[in-house]
Amino acid sequence: MKKMLIYEGKAKRVYSTDDENLLIIEYKDEATAFDGKKRGIIPNKGILNNKISAILFEYLQANGVKTHFVKLLSDREQLVKRVKIIPIEVIVRNIAAGSLSKRLGLPEGMELKHTVLEFCYKNDELGDPMINHYHAVAMELATWQELNEIEQIALKVNELLKKLFAEKNIILVDFKLEFGKHNGEILLADEISPDTCRFWDALTKEKLDKDRFRRDLGNVEEAYWEIYNRLTKGV
Amino acid sequence: MKKMLIYEGKAKRVYSTDDENLLIIEYKDEATAFDGKKRGIIPNKGILNNKISAILFEYLQANGVKTHFVKLLSDREQLVKRVKIIPIEVIVRNIAAGSLSKRLGLPEGMELKHTVLEFCYKNDELGDPMINHYHAVAMELATWQELNEIEQIALKVNELLKKLFAEKNIILVDFKLEFGKHNGEILLADEISPDTCRFWDALTKEKLDKDRFRRDLGNVEEAYWEIYNRLTKGV
Ligand SMILES: Nc1ncnc2c1ncn2[C@@H]1O[C@H](COP(=O)(O)OP(=O)(O)O)[C@@H](O)[C@H]1O
Ligand SMILES: Nc1ncnc2c1ncn2[C@@H]1O[C@H](COP(=O)(O)OP(=O)(O)O)[C@@H](O)[C@H]1O
Ligand SMILES: [Mg+2]
Ligand SMILES: [Mg+2]
Repeated sequence: MKKMLIYEGKAKRVYSTDDENLLIIEYKDEATAFDGKKRGIIPNKGILNNKISAILFEYLQANGVKTHFVKLLSDREQLVKRVKIIPIEVIVRNIAAGSLSKRLGLPEGMELKHTVLEFCYKNDELGDPMINHYHAVAMELATWQELNEIEQIALKVNELLKKLFAEKNIILVDFKLEFGKHNGEILLADEISPDTCRFWDALTKEKLDKDRFRRDLGNVEEAYWEIYNRLTKGV
Repeated sequence: MKKMLIYEGKAKRVYSTDDENLLIIEYKDEATAFDGKKRGIIPNKGILNNKISAILFEYLQANGVKTHFVKLLSDREQLVKRVKIIPIEVIVRNIAAGSLSKRLGLPEGMELKHTVLEFCYKNDELGDPMINHYHAVAMELATWQELNEIEQIALKVNELLKKLFAEKNIILVDFKLEFGKHNGEILLADEISPDTCRFWDALTKEKLDKDRFRRDLGNVEEAYWEIYNRLTKGV
């Protein structure tokens, strides 16, 4: 069913299929951070992220969010609808951490008074710079209407994921989404996993995400397993 | 009439007056760039910027924009309404240049498809980082409603200034505005000058602003005089 490798990214490979509307996404164990300056392997990450993403996309889909997800194919592969990716990374933040803390001087762990959305121009060479609606429209990355729709979907995804993870005693600190267009419709695409989210244990505040890799905190693979286990087996 | 120096900034001094609603702003010749890493003196800059700002504030005021400007007091001083500055620098861009070109890879001189507005958190220690409405509201710098009002004023100021400068054969590439609150009302404050705008000669594209200082292009003082002369004596 896999036809041709059409893109190899930092964390996944994308293949065409017999159906031009469908792609296969294969999740790799490779991990990168800091614009690719840090590289490594997290054993089984590809398997865990593939399955975690699938669970989360199915959950969102069941709650009215349109996603690219079609079905799991194997340990590392899922079938998705082919979209034209909008080159904007949408970051949703509930608690200050990472680049936000650094850029704005807000202590990591500070609860934000309101959900914060950020748009970044998905462009590795430029280091995914933050942009606003004006930049996005001036660069013709998307229309005002599409940007507003994306914001609404991102906020809905946040509410749904916050609720799901709270039930697993996990704080959803922040996460990154990508969207794409398929037959004129905006679909949530790419992945949702410990690579693209910050998850903290609600009790211990222990980090259960890629920050363990970025900051050399150890037990990286274990953190990904922990998220997977809590999602599949309850707390 | 001057009572007390209440603030000394990079380009101006601010004094209280007998009237608690009024301040005196004194314009200095000191110039800084790159977060204060580059410093110098531009002879007569204080005088020219004081007068240029006064001309532009009067023009805007006459066209329905509410500003802090009251009147010129001397070569280097103007009387203004005291405002509580909203710590957001509003950048308005018609043509790609400077940090926008660098951050987004847009060639300097490229006409933008739409006016671009940017908000930066006015904070020297953090290097005036770019923010969006969500950040501003989460940090309680301003309300959504205030941000929307500020955007509308900034766009109106842009239309008015573009028109005025076009008549003087000057292209208004971009500029920075500051706003403040006075009796619950939002007023345009601070200064509008070659320190805070990019001006290009319409014919030669020669830079007539602080970029001559930033980039060591020479004839810095002459550029400020040129802007002043065109505003007061026609082209
Ligand atoms: N449904 C989809 N259709 C087309 N492209 C997609 C879809 N979902 C994700 N993508 C893109 O496929 C790539 C996934 O590989 P990844 O390793 O994340 O790449 P990158 O290093 O560019 O982030 C990304 O560029 C992502 O934008
Ligand atoms: N009407 C006003 N009322 C109070 N403060 C003002 C007013 N207009 C400008 N300011 C503030 O006064 C200071 C002017 O000095 P400046 O040299 O520009 O300082 P800075 O180095 O902080 O930019 C700025 O901090 C500016 O925000
Ligand atoms: Mg990716
Ligand atoms: Mg200033």
